[in-house]
Amino acid sequence: RKMEGYGRFLALLASTLLVGFVSVILSLVWIFHYREGLSWDGSAGEFNWHPVLIITGFVFIQGIAIIVYRLPWTWKCSKLLMKFIHAGLNTIAMILAIVSMVAVFDFHNAGNIPNMYSLHSWIGLTAVIFYSLQLFLGFAVFLLPFAPVHLRAALMPIHVYSGLTIFATVIATALMGITEKLIFALKNPAYSASPPEAILVNCLGLLLVIFGSIILWMASRPHWKRPPEENTKILRPIGATPESTEVESTMTNSSNADKSDLRSNAEAARKQNIKFDEAGQRSTM
Amino acid sequence: RKMEGYGRFLALLASTLLVGFVSVILSLVWIFHYREGLSWDGSAGEFNWHPVLIITGFVFIQGIAIIVYRLPWTWKCSKLLMKFIHAGLNTIAMILAIVSMVAVFDFHNAGNIPNMYSLHSWIGLTAVIFYSLQLFLGFAVFLLPFAPVHLRAALMPIHVYSGLTIFATVIATALMGITEKLIFALKNPAYSASPPEAILVNCLGLLLVIFGSIILWMASRPHWKRPPEENTKILRPIGATPESTEVESTMTNSSNADKSDLRSNAEAARKQNIKFDEAGQRSTM
Repeated sequence: RKMEGYGRFLALLASTLLVGFVSVILSLVWIFHYREGLSWDGSAGEFNWHPVLIITGFVFIQGIAIIVYRLPWTWKCSKLLMKFIHAGLNTIAMILAIVSMVAVFDFHNAGNIPNMYSLHSWIGLTAVIFYSLQLFLGFAVFLLPFAPVHLRAALMPIHVYSGLTIFATVIATALMGITEKLIFALKNPAYSASPPEAILVNCLGLLLVIFGSIILWMASRPHWKRPPEENTKILRPIGATPESTEVESTMTNSSNADKSDLRSNAEAARKQNIKFDEAGQRSTM
Repeated sequence: RKMEGYGRFLALLASTLLVGFVSVILSLVWIFHYREGLSWDGSAGEFNWHPVLIITGFVFIQGIAIIVYRLPWTWKCSKLLMKFIHAGLNTIAMILAIVSMVAVFDFHNAGNIPNMYSLHSWIGLTAVIFYSLQLFLGFAVFLLPFAPVHLRAALMPIHVYSGLTIFATVIATALMGITEKLIFALKNPAYSASPPEAILVNCLGLLLVIFGSIILWMASRPHWKRPPEENTKILRPIGATPESTEVESTMTNSSNADKSDLRSNAEAARKQNIKFDEAGQRSTM
């Protein structure tokens, strides 16, 4: 199947991959060229895992996890496989985020620096907790076959909203962390004297904003959604009744695969649904 | 006309107004109780206009401007009046943001502190520039009656996306600014010792995140959109052809008022459009 605006999608995908990739490289240049490199001994080298793992995992990998359903060459794969990839990437991101937090706590404790005093730490920990909750609920509701269709339909908009809001919050938290680190680490010359390290890491911060903005654009274009399945050979939640029009009418809220679970194979109904999809895909931001 | 989920909408509106109002109060408590109050003489009191005006104007007023179309008691007002209110609130927010930046530049120059060295300043200035551009383009395209319908239709999703992304970026920038200010201002006891001022301002930062999250939820619920006008007595862009089905098919992308510009009064067509609207309103995040 052909995607509408395929060229623009590819250009944006290439841009966001490039920006994300350069962000990871810049974080490594920062840590290895300007800072103390990486180690796991309570020294500054242990702290340095924090920015590297957050940018690699909690920003870059989470960003890719968000748009993975939209890659048109995955549309021939089963929705279930894509759910596993989505959940898997998010699990990797969560593990890296947790390891990166352990690195900071370890570093603080070794140097008798207080934990959890800054706004960065408050919002960052909140984001990790909500992210874990989101992953757990997403797994229980959308991946396991137990949740009834109306529950999936009711929770899908919340799942999408929470995912994008947590992602934006994670980037905001990374910007706060960069601000803190540059103020604390740059002493002679200070941050305010704009040494090369300050310029490099400010640029890294800007790239994170650009990366996040492109991901949010790609994730919120309705016409780049994965299209509904043609067949019905996909996992159906227990209790789903394919003929129920009552359920169908609530399902427009839900994912395309869920919609297709319930779709009658009659050509007329299919066309009607495609019309609905298109209307849906065009009426939003 | 009755709004779907009216009670929930009212509860969220009350919450976001409360959270926004408390944020403004906390910024004043911060500045008057813990800091040097307000003045315009190059001293710290001049700097203090910056957080107060940003939180009042660039966060709170901008947030209200974003959801103003969604207040159901305004649905009987003309779309044009609501556009003026939307543009007016955003203009006030922009003026307050610019004054608040002048306060910082003045304060820096008086104290020989460098300007524009921090990531906060880079992203903040970028946000103000994009916000001004957005306001100018919004005025030229959606308020003045010159832009053709297809241009409005093509730009509306970009306008909505940019508006929400700039709003989120402004909140992220405010969080960076809070982080900077607490590190610089708290010396004895330091930020890391969590004095009452640090706790108060961390809470202020959390409230800004909550305020932004509620606004983004309210602004992205498709079923809380202002419904299409019943009549056609509204300002029609020059060149609009009410009967053109070609244009109508692209208009699903656009605002409801624009859609209604082109809507045939035939009952069947009206019903079909409502169906489309409903499909659209349910298929997104």
